[in-house]
Amino acid sequence: MNMRYDIAIIGSGPAGLSASINAKIRNKNFILFGSSELSPKISKAPKINNYLGFPNSNGSELKEHFKNHINTMDITITEEKVNAIYSMGSYFALMVNDKTYEATTVILATGVEFTKPIKGEEEFLGKGVGYCATCDAPLYRGKVVAIVGYNKEAEEEANYVSELASKVYYIPMYKEEPNVNSNISILKDTPIEVQGDTLVSKLVLKETTIDADGVFMLKDSISPANLMPGLQVEDGHIIVDRTMSTNIKGCFAAGDIVGKPYQYIKSAGEGLIATLSAVSYLDKNK
Amino acid sequence: MNMRYDIAIIGSGPAGLSASINAKIRNKNFILFGSSELSPKISKAPKINNYLGFPNSNGSELKEHFKNHINTMDITITEEKVNAIYSMGSYFALMVNDKTYEATTVILATGVEFTKPIKGEEEFLGKGVGYCATCDAPLYRGKVVAIVGYNKEAEEEANYVSELASKVYYIPMYKEEPNVNSNISILKDTPIEVQGDTLVSKLVLKETTIDADGVFMLKDSISPANLMPGLQVEDGHIIVDRTMSTNIKGCFAAGDIVGKPYQYIKSAGEGLIATLSAVSYLDKNK
Repeated sequence: MNMRYDIAIIGSGPAGLSASINAKIRNKNFILFGSSELSPKISKAPKINNYLGFPNSNGSELKEHFKNHINTMDITITEEKVNAIYSMGSYFALMVNDKTYEATTVILATGVEFTKPIKGEEEFLGKGVGYCATCDAPLYRGKVVAIVGYNKEAEEEANYVSELASKVYYIPMYKEEPNVNSNISILKDTPIEVQGDTLVSKLVLKETTIDADGVFMLKDSISPANLMPGLQVEDGHIIVDRTMSTNIKGCFAAGDIVGKPYQYIKSAGEGLIATLSAVSYLDKNK
Repeated sequence: MNMRYDIAIIGSGPAGLSASINAKIRNKNFILFGSSELSPKISKAPKINNYLGFPNSNGSELKEHFKNHINTMDITITEEKVNAIYSMGSYFALMVNDKTYEATTVILATGVEFTKPIKGEEEFLGKGVGYCATCDAPLYRGKVVAIVGYNKEAEEEANYVSELASKVYYIPMYKEEPNVNSNISILKDTPIEVQGDTLVSKLVLKETTIDADGVFMLKDSISPANLMPGLQVEDGHIIVDRTMSTNIKGCFAAGDIVGKPYQYIKSAGEGLIATLSAVSYLDKNK
């Protein structure tokens, strides 16, 4: 049986970090998913003057302060990517490639850097289009699969799928040279459209068109509605109330993902509220 | 004619300070009312570990960081007490003893340290009970007034009233020896109840009872409903939506006054949102 966490926090930007320090203070058994780089945006911010307590600061300076804070509190970041979260009634199942984690509550703090979907991508989602190749690989045994990789980590998923599929095309969306199994065909091209009848049959690229039974779009972040089925979303943001509760019981959200303003201290404040609401939910549902 | 500010921020705790740094960044003409001590609670907090970026901190340490931040940005605190705020349609009138300030928008960030009202106090509010002696003094020309002073600043108000009233009783609620005009009778006693028929006629104290036409309760902070008539309040907290807007157009609120959790970073995040909402309101109502 899987260990069940009290709280799973998805995202290591200011909202997720603030949620995690409060989970630690409240002595909860939690897991924080994210990157040791914290957030891809954070180190790029050139000037930040409105994080109260740090005048004339910038993203990389604040990042060091945040890192120091979680290190001081012995909080570790689990560098794995959550591909999907399912509400199982009394707990949540978090799909992380070939693993599953369980948590009684979830705090979504994944930010808003979504890659714009290509034509047909959302239409064929679940009908040949997927966001987690390793999760769905068994469906494509002996079939043709195209994998659009938005980061180096996608290569591992491509290798895994290539062991089952009859043919794998890999389309890298980054500059570095991809390093994948030799039975994978690398296409340095730009995907334009997913086509098909009821199921996916083709991926149209700028220079060519390939036949494919499955197309995986392996992105840095997954839009909230695709991450957790049933979640109420408006204009790309998760709908929350003042306690940071979503429409799904036990699921909370904080930071950019719940709406503007996209600002660190707003996210950090919301991360705190989300954890305290999760703690209160845990107390009530003991 | 009075100068009209874009934004009047009431309160210099984390919510008010965060609101003010964002007002400064947005280049707004604003005034920040509060105390150079920032917030009476802030320096008393023994240990704070959940203000992201400052691990193992405490109230007085954070206070210095906050002070440094507003000093760096040349933000000054107006050390005057706002006694009442009236919505005048397109702007707000802020009553500060014998002065009036005007502002197009108001951000309430006064915290939650309210002194518990004594028996009859709220019942007779406006019928002989008041919170601003200098505002209402003309009503008590030639009459008997009791002034309950919760801080040294109340002495000045008592002196002013004593020039008009036939008799002033001063009841100090603090330890230091009061220093008031010689025509004022000092009662070192504890007020228990305001009595009267339709208007105030008596103030009952622990040791004695005095006849009085007016009773002023001069407190550190005034409850939000008494500060701004018409404001929607629930369980002592101002009702706001996710943009920190209250039910009164142009009036925003942030921090402890809008509800729990009572935490610095939550207040700071809300202060930022309140200012950005005020800025957006100003843009729309130009």
